[in-house]
Amino acid sequence: MASVNENYLKLQGSYLFQTIAKKVDAYTKAHPEAKIIRLGIGDVTRPIVPAIVEAMHKAVDEMGKAETFRGYGPEQGYEFLREAIVKGDFKSRGVDIDPGEVFVSDGAKTDSACIQEIFGSDLKFAVSDPVYPVYLDSNIMFGHTGPWNEAKGTYDGVVYLPCSPENGFKPVPPKEKVDLVYLCNPSNPTGTAMTKEELGSWVDYARREKVVLIYDAAYEAYITETSVPHTIYEIEGAKDVAIELRSYSKCAGFTGVRCSYVIVPHALVAYKKDGTAVELNPLWNRRQGTFTNGTAYIIQRAAEAYYSEEGHKECMADVDYYMTNAHIIRDGLKAAGFTVYGATNSPYAWIETPKGMKSWELFDLLLEKANVVTTPGSGFGPHGEGYLRLTAFGTRENTEEAVKRIQALHLIQ
Amino acid sequence: MASVNENYLKLQGSYLFQTIAKKVDAYTKAHPEAKIIRLGIGDVTRPIVPAIVEAMHKAVDEMGKAETFRGYGPEQGYEFLREAIVKGDFKSRGVDIDPGEVFVSDGAKTDSACIQEIFGSDLKFAVSDPVYPVYLDSNIMFGHTGPWNEAKGTYDGVVYLPCSPENGFKPVPPKEKVDLVYLCNPSNPTGTAMTKEELGSWVDYARREKVVLIYDAAYEAYITETSVPHTIYEIEGAKDVAIELRSYSKCAGFTGVRCSYVIVPHALVAYKKDGTAVELNPLWNRRQGTFTNGTAYIIQRAAEAYYSEEGHKECMADVDYYMTNAHIIRDGLKAAGFTVYGATNSPYAWIETPKGMKSWELFDLLLEKANVVTTPGSGFGPHGEGYLRLTAFGTRENTEEAVKRIQALHLIQ
Repeated sequence: MASVNENYLKLQGSYLFQTIAKKVDAYTKAHPEAKIIRLGIGDVTRPIVPAIVEAMHKAVDEMGKAETFRGYGPEQGYEFLREAIVKGDFKSRGVDIDPGEVFVSDGAKTDSACIQEIFGSDLKFAVSDPVYPVYLDSNIMFGHTGPWNEAKGTYDGVVYLPCSPENGFKPVPPKEKVDLVYLCNPSNPTGTAMTKEELGSWVDYARREKVVLIYDAAYEAYITETSVPHTIYEIEGAKDVAIELRSYSKCAGFTGVRCSYVIVPHALVAYKKDGTAVELNPLWNRRQGTFTNGTAYIIQRAAEAYYSEEGHKECMADVDYYMTNAHIIRDGLKAAGFTVYGATNSPYAWIETPKGMKSWELFDLLLEKANVVTTPGSGFGPHGEGYLRLTAFGTRENTEEAVKRIQALHLIQ
Repeated sequence: MASVNENYLKLQGSYLFQTIAKKVDAYTKAHPEAKIIRLGIGDVTRPIVPAIVEAMHKAVDEMGKAETFRGYGPEQGYEFLREAIVKGDFKSRGVDIDPGEVFVSDGAKTDSACIQEIFGSDLKFAVSDPVYPVYLDSNIMFGHTGPWNEAKGTYDGVVYLPCSPENGFKPVPPKEKVDLVYLCNPSNPTGTAMTKEELGSWVDYARREKVVLIYDAAYEAYITETSVPHTIYEIEGAKDVAIELRSYSKCAGFTGVRCSYVIVPHALVAYKKDGTAVELNPLWNRRQGTFTNGTAYIIQRAAEAYYSEEGHKECMADVDYYMTNAHIIRDGLKAAGFTVYGATNSPYAWIETPKGMKSWELFDLLLEKANVVTTPGSGFGPHGEGYLRLTAFGTRENTEEAVKRIQALHLIQ
């Protein structure tokens, strides 16, 4: 008799962004005239840049001719892309990565949800609170947590790392023993970023405690301060303890194109029950070799074009565009009296709700009174309660208009 | 301290096709002059058809313009594709499928490896022997088997369904209790196909025993006999017991384009430990919503074009081309004295090795003496020993040449 994975039944409600989408749909149906501005989900709005469009057309043509057609590619990604990554994202920052340490994939969401599969099923993990929901939900679904604890508003068995104004929304190593720690830097959702020194203390901790860090650098292109590292491997010794996740969604607008990669250094190990060290790179290689047939050729050519001189220039112009939006949100809401975090090394602004309002209260109010969609901080964890996340990925016009509408509500006297 | 998933260490050697690739690479390096013909991995060689190339160019252009740019799509797939699937693959065969039962994805390999995640972790499963390695290996990696049993050449805890000339290489329901059964029809690797009646007895069994069938119909486009169903849902009652996996790799040449889909009927349930029935459709929906951001927009437009009048006609012409190759292999090797199965409803021919040779012996012999790459049957399971799989996905010229070279060896007097 087929049994279900009862871990799925522990999950509270549906995925945050699906809930928001439903609320917005319902509002739109009731108010078809409303001009909704979406600063909720971190989805880009700028089109794919010309150099990448050109590369995709070229790849499509290749697929249409027998002489240049490509069938199954290497599950780990084509050499042309792995080498472009090594050169463009690492050598350029003084970091040596071997192409054999690079695993191309079709999205950092998938990578971050699946990476745990190579670890023991009794693993204990830590996540920031608030946190990008996928790290937590995917672990729940694989049975790495206890049940939902209604009183606490958390899952039993998870080590939460509280992020608050007191620690600048930067997680610090836990006292409890854990096996894995998920770190997102610059952080989603708070938009804050750890410096090289702060991240260094995480690497020291992980080396000392034999912990593996799952380091999500999806927002590295938005870093403006030189104190913040673009890759964790800028920290000495990080290759012994960290897996890095990277995405083209935010640096090249690939949310609908789908490409990402994972770095699993050759030096990285985890342990068998008998204490023997086992290299993780061949394990992830085997995982990808068995579970996927690699990423579409056309998409890999698109990612490669991100590293061309023209492609990179065009993509960075879009990143600048979004960062200007981030500053408009940050400065505009500060001017309206809000306390605002992030939006300096990140496309996200993290704003405190006024007068002790709950996150969903302010979400509803902004949807109804300003027709602006945001993301309630409480959807990212209990320490997100009392905050909202706003993204800078809208158009300039919409971003300016949204800020004006929120200012006009005079929520803070 | 981070521990490894020790289930990975149970795996014997590396993924079959990676092993073959290494052998061929080594041979090619030693004999750079050899003109190798690859009839091993089931990879297509015909380019993407014009109607699909055109659809991809159009989608690429849309992604390059702000007005038509698409970011994150629905994790389940765009409505335009789900509706095209319902109409093109099911309504056309008298089967009603709701678009909400369709989950678009980027490859049937991934789908077949991941679908088990929604079932209880103590699941017991059955697979054909020989079998497509991914069903088995992915279950090993998730800990659903015991260790490798060297004496038997099988994994403990797995229910193998022997396929041999005696049963026409068609699996029959096991006596042991299982939760899941993987069925591939037409079968990879044997190329044989169950009729509607034979599949009907599987559906009856599954309904009686509350077993879920994972039905892989990746090769349905190659069915030529009317007695063989194109979808399991042609069998009455199948929606209560079966998940169907479909792929565009073989019907539209998408091995490098990457698109597939899964049907999880609303009627399908599995059970909690307390005996409560739970619908599987919302569970897979949640899995996809948490673990993926959907399939690339451009790729979904490519799949949609497969269902256009022009696209379908062009794709079916390629299917015919490959089926002619299949007949050339089947008839040519029969003429040379080989016993050949399959290649009638499938692009695969399954040939018996002569004189009791081992699969890898004949593989090596054909690689070295005929420079033809095949797949050793033993790589698909112990009952595959003594067979080779040949694929019809080569060019006409290479297929004819490979058959001539094998005939010229006069292996069978």
